[in-house]
Amino acid sequence: MDHQQLLSLLRQMTLDEKVAQLLQLATPFFKGADDAGMITGPMASLGVTEREVRNAGSVLGLSGAQQVIDIQTNHLKHNRLGIPLLVMSDIVHGFKTIFPIPLAIGCSWDMALAERSAEIAAREAAVSGVHVTYAPMVDLVRDPRWGRVMESTGEDPYLNNLFARAFVRGFQGQDLAGDTDRVAACVKHFAAYGAAEAGRDYNTVDLSERLLREFYLPAYKAALDEGCEMVMTSFNTIDGIPASGNAWLMRKLLREEWGFDGILISDWGAVKELIPHGVAEDEAEAAYKAIRAGVDIEMMTPCYVHHLAELVRSGRVDERLVDEAVLRILQLKSKLGLFERPLRGADPEREREIVFCEAHRSSARELAVKSCVLLQNDNEVLPLAGTGKIALIGPFAQSGDILGAWSWQGAKEDAVTLRDGLAAAGLDASRLIVAEGCGVDAPATEAQLAAAIEAAGEADAVVLALGEHAWMSGEASCRADIRLPEAQLALIAALKPLGKPTVAVLFNGRPLDLHGVADQVDAVLEAWFPGSAGGAAVADLLLGKASPSGRLAMSFPHAVGQVPVYYNAYNTGRPNVPTAPDHYVSKYLDIPNEPRYPFGYGLGYTTFAYEAPRLSAAELRADGELTVSVRVTNAGRRTGEETVQLYVRDVAGDVVRPVKELKDYRKLVLAPGESAEVSFTITEPQLRYYHADLTFASDPGEFIVYVGPNSRDTAEARFRLTSTV
Amino acid sequence: MDHQQLLSLLRQMTLDEKVAQLLQLATPFFKGADDAGMITGPMASLGVTEREVRNAGSVLGLSGAQQVIDIQTNHLKHNRLGIPLLVMSDIVHGFKTIFPIPLAIGCSWDMALAERSAEIAAREAAVSGVHVTYAPMVDLVRDPRWGRVMESTGEDPYLNNLFARAFVRGFQGQDLAGDTDRVAACVKHFAAYGAAEAGRDYNTVDLSERLLREFYLPAYKAALDEGCEMVMTSFNTIDGIPASGNAWLMRKLLREEWGFDGILISDWGAVKELIPHGVAEDEAEAAYKAIRAGVDIEMMTPCYVHHLAELVRSGRVDERLVDEAVLRILQLKSKLGLFERPLRGADPEREREIVFCEAHRSSARELAVKSCVLLQNDNEVLPLAGTGKIALIGPFAQSGDILGAWSWQGAKEDAVTLRDGLAAAGLDASRLIVAEGCGVDAPATEAQLAAAIEAAGEADAVVLALGEHAWMSGEASCRADIRLPEAQLALIAALKPLGKPTVAVLFNGRPLDLHGVADQVDAVLEAWFPGSAGGAAVADLLLGKASPSGRLAMSFPHAVGQVPVYYNAYNTGRPNVPTAPDHYVSKYLDIPNEPRYPFGYGLGYTTFAYEAPRLSAAELRADGELTVSVRVTNAGRRTGEETVQLYVRDVAGDVVRPVKELKDYRKLVLAPGESAEVSFTITEPQLRYYHADLTFASDPGEFIVYVGPNSRDTAEARFRLTSTV
Repeated sequence: MDHQQLLSLLRQMTLDEKVAQLLQLATPFFKGADDAGMITGPMASLGVTEREVRNAGSVLGLSGAQQVIDIQTNHLKHNRLGIPLLVMSDIVHGFKTIFPIPLAIGCSWDMALAERSAEIAAREAAVSGVHVTYAPMVDLVRDPRWGRVMESTGEDPYLNNLFARAFVRGFQGQDLAGDTDRVAACVKHFAAYGAAEAGRDYNTVDLSERLLREFYLPAYKAALDEGCEMVMTSFNTIDGIPASGNAWLMRKLLREEWGFDGILISDWGAVKELIPHGVAEDEAEAAYKAIRAGVDIEMMTPCYVHHLAELVRSGRVDERLVDEAVLRILQLKSKLGLFERPLRGADPEREREIVFCEAHRSSARELAVKSCVLLQNDNEVLPLAGTGKIALIGPFAQSGDILGAWSWQGAKEDAVTLRDGLAAAGLDASRLIVAEGCGVDAPATEAQLAAAIEAAGEADAVVLALGEHAWMSGEASCRADIRLPEAQLALIAALKPLGKPTVAVLFNGRPLDLHGVADQVDAVLEAWFPGSAGGAAVADLLLGKASPSGRLAMSFPHAVGQVPVYYNAYNTGRPNVPTAPDHYVSKYLDIPNEPRYPFGYGLGYTTFAYEAPRLSAAELRADGELTVSVRVTNAGRRTGEETVQLYVRDVAGDVVRPVKELKDYRKLVLAPGESAEVSFTITEPQLRYYHADLTFASDPGEFIVYVGPNSRDTAEARFRLTSTV
Repeated sequence: MDHQQLLSLLRQMTLDEKVAQLLQLATPFFKGADDAGMITGPMASLGVTEREVRNAGSVLGLSGAQQVIDIQTNHLKHNRLGIPLLVMSDIVHGFKTIFPIPLAIGCSWDMALAERSAEIAAREAAVSGVHVTYAPMVDLVRDPRWGRVMESTGEDPYLNNLFARAFVRGFQGQDLAGDTDRVAACVKHFAAYGAAEAGRDYNTVDLSERLLREFYLPAYKAALDEGCEMVMTSFNTIDGIPASGNAWLMRKLLREEWGFDGILISDWGAVKELIPHGVAEDEAEAAYKAIRAGVDIEMMTPCYVHHLAELVRSGRVDERLVDEAVLRILQLKSKLGLFERPLRGADPEREREIVFCEAHRSSARELAVKSCVLLQNDNEVLPLAGTGKIALIGPFAQSGDILGAWSWQGAKEDAVTLRDGLAAAGLDASRLIVAEGCGVDAPATEAQLAAAIEAAGEADAVVLALGEHAWMSGEASCRADIRLPEAQLALIAALKPLGKPTVAVLFNGRPLDLHGVADQVDAVLEAWFPGSAGGAAVADLLLGKASPSGRLAMSFPHAVGQVPVYYNAYNTGRPNVPTAPDHYVSKYLDIPNEPRYPFGYGLGYTTFAYEAPRLSAAELRADGELTVSVRVTNAGRRTGEETVQLYVRDVAGDVVRPVKELKDYRKLVLAPGESAEVSFTITEPQLRYYHADLTFASDPGEFIVYVGPNSRDTAEARFRLTSTV
């Protein structure tokens, strides 16, 4: 439909129909089934009528080509004006083919593969009838206690921006109407959901506007700059007002300042949650605040559908606000071609062909290989030698629970376990002894322990497959203790006296405190939740068929008492530098300030030597550019991939500036002995930041350039910015 | 001197003399001694000249009547215009007579005793030659990792306000010029120093202006409303700018909005620290930013003295800024009567008489009794029975290290240890067996452990004297792990099998994670660092000569992974209330949301029964008042003191509001069976808060009143505010 047709359609709608168009309900409402209790979230008795369901604008959590066809066909039969449903679903890191969790993808630093993962997720979802995915989630996170850290790409705004764009490109492609293998993206959670206090999900967020703009907002903006069609509100407060009722955030910043004119949807139940938040006394006030703040679609609470018409009739809410919201919804339906093809990509036959197909699983494996991070490799115990017996021990040895949260359509049974991966790589029963050791959080039984010790005793090397249950991260799954569960620490301790070369492979959804792990084993491979092909990917790495190349997108704290700890912090007035006095500096008495593993960190099976970085000039003009060059050499004995990282620091600003900020990076693959020259270009726009008055600009003055393999181990050079625009 | 005389004096001063007046140096500079390295803080080579020392305006860390007399006399001899030195010192919780640490005083909820403690500290300091104390510290704290939590009065703005005022009254009295037993107070650290990220001292602070104004600023303002003469800057940033260079904070808010016209002093070295903070490239820029922000006195760095004159001469800094700063210093000197009596209260003979006198120590004991908090008392193991043997075991059994940080003049040797306290109370050697058990953080030797087990074995009850070294809290003394040191947890575990009734008495400077303590013993008495008379006070409580009446001024977290946890938090949209679903609410998987012991909590030796609170009306008008009444009965068998607490909640606001806010409290002493009616008055001003646009006002609507013995165990009543001003 063209714009005039949409306006004409809008004019034909009654106020009640318009208000119902703003309502989003979960699938059971459209099936007439009463399995609402199975749905995630605080399922309230909604009290919506059948008429409202028939006029509802969108459905949530629906997929499956035939089911979508049935529901859409039925919906059109009963909808007076023939307005099709928008079908939305959480397609976060794959649909049926599950890719590594986003935090793992974040560690790949590989935008092409990230985009491809979203493209495949979109293709499987689209053929299954989905129109919109609630992704990407681009919330910056500094607190590993927060369960939803697994859904983020970490602590760095620059990297988050790149991933936000890559995911949006992958989901949406170039032509949503024509390319029915794509889905519309919905960036979330606007805004700063990842800054929940004390790492407890849904908790209060308090930030200065400066921090919000500098660290938290850019990735949402990047997604929108890439053309992301929708935005979802966050559950938290921003400056004392929950996002879903926050007119400053939504109306002023998102709509006016950023010019976003797409659909803004509340997160599940978030409009009605304005009541427990304590900014609305009842549903009517919640509806009033949300529509004025700019929320178009209310997900799974009935404040709009019960009260908006009355608010309009009484004159409290201008009907134009409702019209605008409805029009945005109709526009997206039109853009997706739903008026012409209401079933869009839903195709049961093609669904059987492409969902979870070999090619997709192969992509998932490739990304999983790139997402694992080798944290430690003492005595070069990895890769495992080609001969000898391996004892594979631990609750994840044969577990398919390696998909991670937000993989609704993924089946554990379909996942390649580590045992299967190793077996497929040629480790037959004569060389691979498997023992469960203990449960994820259930202490070893005597029999389990005896079997584990026997297995380890027989083997030349031990691979411990450890980690967290998938449900220990994800929404509302926060842990105050971020160590491995006690049962597994006990297992490690029990095997330690055998003195075997030991590798810990970790399957988990957050940066962990690795006390009791890193100090007890030789090697630690962080596999995260690697997805459908996880065991195969990890086997490739353990056996040296591939080299680890992942780099941490988030710091691993020394202990939970250090949280939040992140690389791009401010210096303070009393930094704990080597030349500092012993006391009266910013530090702890009992642990270092530094995380156990810093942002950008990761080992491979070779080593790289860096020469000192060289600058093309000592000064940079605002209209000029500067080149930073560094020669990197593979100084080891195997071919490997390095991620050369560029950080910048503004020595003195109008406000304090981070000690380091990632500005660029380059991946390169070098054979043993091979060298390469890596060059980065620095221009004035990269040096801009929010000043005291929140203007975004650079200052003349000194800057430090850091180059290195991670955010800690860098060499520096200095230049002066001599003018600004 | 009158104002005209001061102006005339100012006019006689050269620019260099004026700039030097803004310099504050530590005592060694005035003794010519070279023991600068002994001084706290980042001692830089200052490079000040003798001439600058002779013209310096104030001295830091100086006390001792004769020494002050010598230095002042000498100073006046060499100072061209005869301007006396201001003598400043850290008199925080007592001078020589050490009172409990401020966090302990906070638990007394006793403003009369708090005021008296400051009055005594002032009297001892003043006779010792001190003119100004760097106190009270009124920083609100929510993070027990932060070492300086011991110097605060906790997490509640209302209680902090009352203490801020009480301390200022105690230090300053009514007439600083006439009453030479008083000293000027300097409220610190402006602002929000207690919100250091990750509980690491000096670390970045990031807050919304809303949170800053609502929680953090009121106590500083309360101190100023009480007439506090001086303000000290904090080390941290506020909205990206270190306090000492923050023109918005100091010039706009403190000076213009609040109308503060007293001396603003930087904390130690904080002006020069603008350089490592990264908002100044060099000392000249640091001086420029600090003077423009409104810092009058630069403590222990030479940015002013080296660069301010040149900045004035070059026209970058208006000389009026310097004149204003100097005039403020001269005014305080005049107010203290120093031009007429430059030695003021310094009096060696009287010093010997009153410093650490019996009356003062008796006051310290009284406040210590009121500051201890009984956290647990299973099986009414306390008070200890009048007969039977007591084993007193632990590193604090005979330790005088119970003064806590910030007690420079206090001597451990002078402190009453717990052993001495018990002995003085009549427990002679036949009834008291003492064993050290282990070191504070040194594991028990075999001999120590054997002696401890033997002592416990012989005894009818065990008193464990446990805690932290005094240096484990205080400035720059932050702990990421807030449990008792491992050695002591091991001692507890080793004694547990003996099955004796066991009381843990804790000497420490922060809320602790009491895993391994509270779950292992019968009773826990939090004694904090109780000061000079500490052992006597604790003995009074253990033996039932006094009843514990302290109430926590800060929550004790369940674990460090829960931090920050505090009672006056916001509700969130998905509160973990009893009626909430199991998942998708704001909680942790592994620990409760609630702290182990909440704000306001504390037991006694009797119990109190509360009737339901009654309201005088269901509605409150803006010009009216409402009475909340509750009947409280001593339902136990001993006389005891109860602290009846009143909290209020605004059900729906313009912004989110705390689930509870302390608004008032009343202490009462009741005999067994005795009842009392407690009444509180509620008026509209108590219901005001900062709205979305930061206006401070109330809203009509529903409010909940809570009354109870702590912030958790309350009963409620509701009213509506029907109008606002």
